[in-house]
Amino acid sequence: MNTEDTVTAPVLSRREGHAIFLTLNRPEQRNALSLRMVDALLEELESAGNDPAIRALVLRGTGGHFSAGADVSDMLNAQQLVERGQEDAFEKLNRRFGNLLERFERSPLVTIVALEGSIMGGGLGLACTADIAIASRNARFSLPEARLGLVPAQVAPFVVARIGQSQARRLALAGASIDAAEALRLGLVHSTVTDCAALDAAVAEQLTAVGRCAPAALATTKRLLLDSDPAAAGPGRERLLDHAARLFSRAVQGAEGREGTRAFIEKRPAGWQPQ
Amino acid sequence: MNTEDTVTAPVLSRREGHAIFLTLNRPEQRNALSLRMVDALLEELESAGNDPAIRALVLRGTGGHFSAGADVSDMLNAQQLVERGQEDAFEKLNRRFGNLLERFERSPLVTIVALEGSIMGGGLGLACTADIAIASRNARFSLPEARLGLVPAQVAPFVVARIGQSQARRLALAGASIDAAEALRLGLVHSTVTDCAALDAAVAEQLTAVGRCAPAALATTKRLLLDSDPAAAGPGRERLLDHAARLFSRAVQGAEGREGTRAFIEKRPAGWQPQ
Amino acid sequence: MNTEDTVTAPVLSRREGHAIFLTLNRPEQRNALSLRMVDALLEELESAGNDPAIRALVLRGTGGHFSAGADVSDMLNAQQLVERGQEDAFEKLNRRFGNLLERFERSPLVTIVALEGSIMGGGLGLACTADIAIASRNARFSLPEARLGLVPAQVAPFVVARIGQSQARRLALAGASIDAAEALRLGLVHSTVTDCAALDAAVAEQLTAVGRCAPAALATTKRLLLDSDPAAAGPGRERLLDHAARLFSRAVQGAEGREGTRAFIEKRPAGWQPQ
Repeated sequence: MNTEDTVTAPVLSRREGHAIFLTLNRPEQRNALSLRMVDALLEELESAGNDPAIRALVLRGTGGHFSAGADVSDMLNAQQLVERGQEDAFEKLNRRFGNLLERFERSPLVTIVALEGSIMGGGLGLACTADIAIASRNARFSLPEARLGLVPAQVAPFVVARIGQSQARRLALAGASIDAAEALRLGLVHSTVTDCAALDAAVAEQLTAVGRCAPAALATTKRLLLDSDPAAAGPGRERLLDHAARLFSRAVQGAEGREGTRAFIEKRPAGWQPQ
Repeated sequence: MNTEDTVTAPVLSRREGHAIFLTLNRPEQRNALSLRMVDALLEELESAGNDPAIRALVLRGTGGHFSAGADVSDMLNAQQLVERGQEDAFEKLNRRFGNLLERFERSPLVTIVALEGSIMGGGLGLACTADIAIASRNARFSLPEARLGLVPAQVAPFVVARIGQSQARRLALAGASIDAAEALRLGLVHSTVTDCAALDAAVAEQLTAVGRCAPAALATTKRLLLDSDPAAAGPGRERLLDHAARLFSRAVQGAEGREGTRAFIEKRPAGWQPQ
Repeated sequence: MNTEDTVTAPVLSRREGHAIFLTLNRPEQRNALSLRMVDALLEELESAGNDPAIRALVLRGTGGHFSAGADVSDMLNAQQLVERGQEDAFEKLNRRFGNLLERFERSPLVTIVALEGSIMGGGLGLACTADIAIASRNARFSLPEARLGLVPAQVAPFVVARIGQSQARRLALAGASIDAAEALRLGLVHSTVTDCAALDAAVAEQLTAVGRCAPAALATTKRLLLDSDPAAAGPGRERLLDHAARLFSRAVQGAEGREGTRAFIEKRPAGWQPQ
C-alpha cells in the first residue's frame, strides 16, 4: 500500500450548480483505479444520485491522464490473501470493479467523462459507461491486458455495449492503442476537442444542455434506452460479469499471468514472445 | 383539431412504376405526426404491402421538413379524454405511434426515407425504421422530448436498434441536434446529398437498384436481417413498447410534463432550468 | 465438378512463425467458395486451432480477389441431388457454409483477413467473422444474392453481428457494392491500406502485435467478447442458421431463384426487372 494513498483522498469531489465534479486523484500512478478509489467512487455516485439538486456528474483525472487502469498494489494484496487461504480474493477484487461499472452505467444522473492522456483497461471500461464521452486530441485508448497474460474481464461487456464486439475484438486482440480520432469513429467517445483546455468548455456546454432538460425525464429516458439494448439489459449482464471475474482469477494465477506480471516488473519481454 | 386537417389529406400518395411515394402533408405544422396522419400511414402501408406490383415505398415531407414530431392538438385531445375519465388516453395515443413504427420496420417493401429540414422526436423514430435513409445536407436531427419534460418513449427502442444505446443516450440526454454529416457518421442515415433536389436523384437511383432484385427474395432477406438482431426481434420489443407507453403517460401527466408543456406554450424557460 | 479442382488444392497452407497463412486458391473462379474449399478450410482451422505453436491465422485470396462468393458447380450438383430425391440437398449445402462461419468466428486463434478485389456474398460473410479485417483500397464489397433471386442466408447473421442490422439491410436490399472507405466507415473492416502490397506489411504488423500477447489470454478474451454480444452468443444463432438454410433452399428452388439463375447464365435481365 502506498503511503500517499492513506493521506490523500483518491477522488476529489466538488459541487457546482446542478453538477458534481469528481476527479481521479492519483497522478503519480496515472490514476490507476485502486480499491480505495473504487470505493470512493461508489460512495460519491450513491450520494450524488440521491441528491435531488444534482443532475449531472463529471468525471476527470488529474495530472494529464484519465486512468491507466488497474492498480498494482491491489493485485499484490490479493496475492497475499490467496496465499493466506482466501481463494477468491482476485475474483472478488475484479468483480468489485465491475460493480462500479454497473452502477456508473445505471446512474440516474447524466454522466460525462472528460478524457485525456492514457485511458487504459479499467479506465477505458469506466469511460464506456458514461452518457457523454469527450476526448482531447492527445487521448490514447487501449486494452493492454493480454500483453500481461491477463483478461479485460469486467471491462469486456461494457466495451462491447459501447462499440460492438467486432471493434472490441480488434482493440483487445491486437493490443494496440488508438487515438481520439479513431475513438470517435468507433463511437468510443462522442466528440473530440483540440486540447485539454477545450475539455472544460465542452463539459460546460453539455452541462448547460442538461440544465434545459427535465431531471426525472432524463433519468427515465436513460433507463429506457439502456433497457432497449439486450447487451446492456437483463440478468445476462450480471451472470457474464460473475463469469468474467472467475476468468480473471484463473488468468492472473495461471502460468501466463504470473509470467506476464514478472516480465512487466523486470521490464523484459514475456516468455511467450517469438524471438 | 385543426380545420385544415379535416379538408386536406394528411398523407399524399402517388404510384410510379414499382414504387409508392408517400408525402407527409402538414407543412404548416412541419409535418407533425397527428393521429390522422398515423392512421393514414398505417392504411397506405398495408395496402401497398398487399399489392404485388409495389416493391418499394418512399416517404418524404412537404414544405422543406421531414417531420417535427408529435402533434400538439392530439395531446390536448388526450388531456380532455383523461379529464372525462379515460385514464389510458395518453398511453393509447403513444402506443399507436409505436405500432406504426413496428409496421414500418417490418414492411415487406423496401422502404426509403428522403430527409430534409427538421427530423425530430417521432419523425426521427420513423426515419430509423427505413431500410434506406438519405439525408440532405440541411437536415437536422434531434430528440427534444426531455426539454419538454417528456420521454421519447416509442421512439427509444427504434433509435437504439439504429445507432446503438450509446449514441442514442448521447443524442437524447444532451438534447442537442446533430447535422446530416454526423447522422451519417452515427449510421442514423445511410447517405447524404448536397441539397433537396439531389434527394430525388438519389431516391431514383435506389429504386433502380431495388428493381434489379427479386421482390420475394428482398422481403425474405429483410425479415432475416431483422431477426438476426436481438434488439429488433422477438417479444421483448412489444413488451418494451407497452412499458414505454406507460412511462410516457406518467411523464406527460406528471409535474415535469405539465410544467414543460406550459413553459413551451408560454415561450419561457421551464421552472427546472438553473438560473 | 471442375477438372482443375480435383488436381489443385483449393486452399494453400503455409506456416511461418506463430501464424498459419491460408490462401483461397481458385483464381479462375475468383475464389468462389466451393464445398471442397469449405471442407479444406474447416480442416485447416481445426488442425491449426489444436497446434499450441500457432496463435494466428491469416486468410487471403489468390489472383487479386478475396472471394466472389458461392460456387456455381456446387449449386448444379445440389440440383441433381434434389432431382434424385434428396430433398434437403440445398439446405445441407447452405448450412455447411454456415458451419464454417461459426467455426471461423469461434476459432481460439486470432484471425486476420487481407481483403482485395471482390468480396461478395459468402466471401463477405467469411470476412465478417475475422478478428482483424484489413482491406486494400481496391476492395469492393457486396451482397448480390437478391439480384439472383436468392437470399444471403448463412451470411446474414454474421453481417448483422459485424455492422448491425441497419447497415446490413441497406447493403443487402439496395444490392449495390461499397468500397473500402465505406467498409471502414461501417466497421465491416478495421483498417485500410493503399494497395495490395501494403496488405502484407499491415498483416505482419498485426502478427507482431499478436506475438506480444499471451496466447491463452487472447483466446479467453476473444470468447468473452463474443459472449458479451447477444447477437453472436447463445443458441439463438444456431436456430437462426438452421432457419436460414431452409429459406435458402426454398428461394433457390422457387420461381425467383430458377429465373434468376437462368437469367444470370443467359446474361439477360431477370423477368422481374421493370422495363
